[in-house]
Amino acid sequence: MPVRIGVIGLGVMGADHVRTLHGMVANAVVTRVTDINAERSAQLGAEIESATVSSDGMELINDRDVDAVIIASHDSTHAELATACVKAGKPVLCEKPLAPTSDEAAGVVAAENGAGLISLGFNRRFDPAFAELRSVAQSGDLGAPLLVHFSHRNVESYPGADSAFSITGSAIHEFDTVPWLLGSPIVEVSWHAPKRSGRVPEKLQDPQLMLLRTADGVLTTAETFINAAFGYDVRCEVVCETGAVQVTKPDHTTVDVSGRRGTRYPSDWRPRFADSYRRELQAWVGAIMSGSPTPLATARDGLAASAVAEAVVTSMNSGGKTVTVTIPEI
Amino acid sequence: MPVRIGVIGLGVMGADHVRTLHGMVANAVVTRVTDINAERSAQLGAEIESATVSSDGMELINDRDVDAVIIASHDSTHAELATACVKAGKPVLCEKPLAPTSDEAAGVVAAENGAGLISLGFNRRFDPAFAELRSVAQSGDLGAPLLVHFSHRNVESYPGADSAFSITGSAIHEFDTVPWLLGSPIVEVSWHAPKRSGRVPEKLQDPQLMLLRTADGVLTTAETFINAAFGYDVRCEVVCETGAVQVTKPDHTTVDVSGRRGTRYPSDWRPRFADSYRRELQAWVGAIMSGSPTPLATARDGLAASAVAEAVVTSMNSGGKTVTVTIPEI
Amino acid sequence: MPVRIGVIGLGVMGADHVRTLHGMVANAVVTRVTDINAERSAQLGAEIESATVSSDGMELINDRDVDAVIIASHDSTHAELATACVKAGKPVLCEKPLAPTSDEAAGVVAAENGAGLISLGFNRRFDPAFAELRSVAQSGDLGAPLLVHFSHRNVESYPGADSAFSITGSAIHEFDTVPWLLGSPIVEVSWHAPKRSGRVPEKLQDPQLMLLRTADGVLTTAETFINAAFGYDVRCEVVCETGAVQVTKPDHTTVDVSGRRGTRYPSDWRPRFADSYRRELQAWVGAIMSGSPTPLATARDGLAASAVAEAVVTSMNSGGKTVTVTIPEI
Amino acid sequence: MPVRIGVIGLGVMGADHVRTLHGMVANAVVTRVTDINAERSAQLGAEIESATVSSDGMELINDRDVDAVIIASHDSTHAELATACVKAGKPVLCEKPLAPTSDEAAGVVAAENGAGLISLGFNRRFDPAFAELRSVAQSGDLGAPLLVHFSHRNVESYPGADSAFSITGSAIHEFDTVPWLLGSPIVEVSWHAPKRSGRVPEKLQDPQLMLLRTADGVLTTAETFINAAFGYDVRCEVVCETGAVQVTKPDHTTVDVSGRRGTRYPSDWRPRFADSYRRELQAWVGAIMSGSPTPLATARDGLAASAVAEAVVTSMNSGGKTVTVTIPEI
Repeated sequence: MPVRIGVIGLGVMGADHVRTLHGMVANAVVTRVTDINAERSAQLGAEIESATVSSDGMELINDRDVDAVIIASHDSTHAELATACVKAGKPVLCEKPLAPTSDEAAGVVAAENGAGLISLGFNRRFDPAFAELRSVAQSGDLGAPLLVHFSHRNVESYPGADSAFSITGSAIHEFDTVPWLLGSPIVEVSWHAPKRSGRVPEKLQDPQLMLLRTADGVLTTAETFINAAFGYDVRCEVVCETGAVQVTKPDHTTVDVSGRRGTRYPSDWRPRFADSYRRELQAWVGAIMSGSPTPLATARDGLAASAVAEAVVTSMNSGGKTVTVTIPEI
Repeated sequence: MPVRIGVIGLGVMGADHVRTLHGMVANAVVTRVTDINAERSAQLGAEIESATVSSDGMELINDRDVDAVIIASHDSTHAELATACVKAGKPVLCEKPLAPTSDEAAGVVAAENGAGLISLGFNRRFDPAFAELRSVAQSGDLGAPLLVHFSHRNVESYPGADSAFSITGSAIHEFDTVPWLLGSPIVEVSWHAPKRSGRVPEKLQDPQLMLLRTADGVLTTAETFINAAFGYDVRCEVVCETGAVQVTKPDHTTVDVSGRRGTRYPSDWRPRFADSYRRELQAWVGAIMSGSPTPLATARDGLAASAVAEAVVTSMNSGGKTVTVTIPEI
Repeated sequence: MPVRIGVIGLGVMGADHVRTLHGMVANAVVTRVTDINAERSAQLGAEIESATVSSDGMELINDRDVDAVIIASHDSTHAELATACVKAGKPVLCEKPLAPTSDEAAGVVAAENGAGLISLGFNRRFDPAFAELRSVAQSGDLGAPLLVHFSHRNVESYPGADSAFSITGSAIHEFDTVPWLLGSPIVEVSWHAPKRSGRVPEKLQDPQLMLLRTADGVLTTAETFINAAFGYDVRCEVVCETGAVQVTKPDHTTVDVSGRRGTRYPSDWRPRFADSYRRELQAWVGAIMSGSPTPLATARDGLAASAVAEAVVTSMNSGGKTVTVTIPEI
Repeated sequence: MPVRIGVIGLGVMGADHVRTLHGMVANAVVTRVTDINAERSAQLGAEIESATVSSDGMELINDRDVDAVIIASHDSTHAELATACVKAGKPVLCEKPLAPTSDEAAGVVAAENGAGLISLGFNRRFDPAFAELRSVAQSGDLGAPLLVHFSHRNVESYPGADSAFSITGSAIHEFDTVPWLLGSPIVEVSWHAPKRSGRVPEKLQDPQLMLLRTADGVLTTAETFINAAFGYDVRCEVVCETGAVQVTKPDHTTVDVSGRRGTRYPSDWRPRFADSYRRELQAWVGAIMSGSPTPLATARDGLAASAVAEAVVTSMNSGGKTVTVTIPEI
């Protein structure tokens, strides 16, 4: 009996999930899809023979032919829909963020009440390179981790992106990755402005630099540059007492041409992380099949990432002050 | 309706296929398994809930709950079992080689009679790096391919390996990859002996060097070194008129420690090619589902690779003469 | 007529300079050497046939057979000896630092009074990789520089190294390199403590992280880790508006062995920067020959680096406050 | 007393040598220059203050102000001029080839009569990467060498280049490098034609592939591609019993821009090997100063390389037959 999955929100991410589940994940069948754009729903419903279109998210969640739900709709809808899944007793994979504010995220965690139904889509945890990075960093083979260097570069920001979005929408991946890498929560942050690129929208400071300190004392430098132009690129190095480890650029081929030897960058995150989404979905489905706790990020992880993002925004708005991360009580 | 698959032969390769199909391939269910070792069959039957144990390959092939068959049993059984699948009208994925000799392989191709039921397990075609290499080489962006350099290195040979095995059991992957890369069959070969490693069994010349010429005039240097000791490593570069392209070493992390910066080699082919097997199996299942021709190597490709292997053995036995490849008439 | 050079201080650095001048630099002859350790002087005097031993630095400076002087003696002697060279009207290449404090360095700059006689031994300016990095960063091909990432790692600290030494003795190279790379002085700094390595002496915070802001608004993250254990390693990346450029690890060979592909790290800075010293000395001698202004760092550059170092120490002692760099008036 | 050097032939190579000796080599002074093109001689004589112009090579060789001679004139003049140097009892650094044919080269060796005056300009021996490659290969750390892979690629051939020139003018570097790497002479060769590039002159087979066997049994694959278009590139890997070692691409910076990460290729051999020429010249001068045997390739090495080139041409002209290398008796 495969897991019957309903997918809410069929934008780039949601549609990718539907196709990945349908074509590359064992023991999963997409039975329902829905989107606020009726045309999108109809198209995907026609493409995926196993799936029919639900009229809206709530109907989909409560459908008897849906065992588990993926929420990939607009960020503002995540908290309400995830809470509805909890009420319906169904496992849900919610794209980040869990909620627009950490207070609202805390509300969802409270509603979940330890049931373990919510998984957060922090896909990097399933990227083989980041998984190996974490495994080496935590192995002790290089001594204790002391310092982490992160660079997160996109080609171009979405229209209307402002400085806060760079933190809550892009750097939030680092806010989950760093504690997961180190096994220690981020407790203190500060925000710093490099020279501003002359190529970016007016309301946007880009690039940005953040310092993140985890409870174990490790310091992380996190660069976010969402108009880096040259390609989509994520780098991470963990510096330990007797050695250092970093993720490699994942290339298939190297080309010599026109006076240069080179490898390619993708123009967005999808080619870079396609396989991590497949692995994430497979792990999620496998855990549902076997009744195991989710191996994905939890609602509490999502809450923690939101609280860090808010602390960084506070630092930015106060001219770079060091700010303590506060997680709302549940 | 998923494709119901029976797997014959549960050694390393066969057991891997069962687990991959079961845990990571969409639209597939393993319904039957069998092995000449009854204990192995029983273990895997117990591990995979959907699968029951057939008494032998022939029973499995003719089972009504088997839509498609994988042959991963001893090389000597491939031809007979593949022919039985053809007779039963069932798609079959046969591990290489199709048959011990090109004459026997030609018999299987004749028996298949154009039905397109047989796929050969030349998994490299589904490795993302080799797929990208081929795509770049055939794109014309670098002009026409002129020369190919291959190195194929294993850590250690199986006990009893002799010089012919290095050709028919290991280099045979190159005999399929080169024509697939270039879109042109191998027509002429010669075999050459580098200095023999002092660490290898007595009957084995290791490493070996082969020159392979395809019908388009491109020359390939193919090194096979099955006791290379340092790790499992496959390299390939295609030199074209205005540039060159090569597969990169597929690493996830780079480690700095003890005076060195380095990346790891796996000790055998499985970590290197695990994802290619998953993709191959998914592509095979997908083609069966949709009734499309197999995107895998065909029986005719398997026959061609066997004919090349025989020509190389002939060159070896004649002191390195240039030998024309002869494909038996069907 | 070759330039007749006297070398004061024959420790590792001074003795290297003598041998490089003698064996690999055109138009230079080492005529005098001296060291507070008489045995050392005698040994080098015997090794280098052209050189005789002076009784002390002052005598060497005023010797008629000395056209130009290299100061590689203890840091505490630099200011006095450099000033003596200025008084004698002789070009002098002084190892960093120019003086123990920026006030004393300012005194030397005042004494020099624009004569241009003093060069500072910031050898990285003559490293081909750093020179190319600067050339690309300043070319405008990648747009304007916005952000710089530096890592400076040594194997092991000298006995007795404390946290201030890591700044004034090691990071001081970055304090010269960054303004030289960007063509803009460092105006503001802050100091931050990553997790402290458990392997380092008690009085030492190691690693350290500094943020350096240049007048052009560019922000630099500078990691100094003087007990990094794995090897001597200096990395630098300049992130610009449309691209990024970094120095590569300078390797001659790559070795595959024992399950790894790897390159070596040297155990100290000398193999990494040997060629930069040769180029620096050749450039210095060439400028003296032709009467051109020194292409090396000047006394004023040395003063600026000392002022930055002091600001960083101030930040460290005040718990990481942002500190403005103050250059003493001359 | 520096070594007083005269340089015959002021084309690209000769003029480079003059400038390198003058500006970057210790203990050398260029006292005489000459070229069949009087304008060239005059220009360089004016540029280099220490040098005056000799009327021709013979006059230069016999000049009392010349201690040692560099021959960088046309290939056809090498044998006669080198022999004149021997007669004059002066050390001579002769660019390759020693002579147009191995018979003529043997005549020069005979004339030298063991005096050790002649050095051959096989500069790769002084490239730090090739030197390290040789050191690792001969260390035994990776077991015995078994197989060597060489690729030698230029951007574009000189007008009028034919297939023999690719062997005698370009691959001849490999014919010296391989025996030097392995410590064993080349005894047997064969020549093979990959697909011919459609971009090359009519009389030229390009690329070419050669198999070279040394007396120790090691086999070398040597690709020469003089119209490779993408850049000047020399690669070499030595495969040993328990590991492999290869020269790395010598890059100073890596650039990320326009969807690619890349490093540059030079457009000809000079930037790649500039430092090897400086080291070669310094080593040559140093040996003359100290009266030591030359650390450069000898006349006998030059003879051996010419004999290998002739054997490869013979193989080419006989359709790829295996040919034994014959060194003329002296």
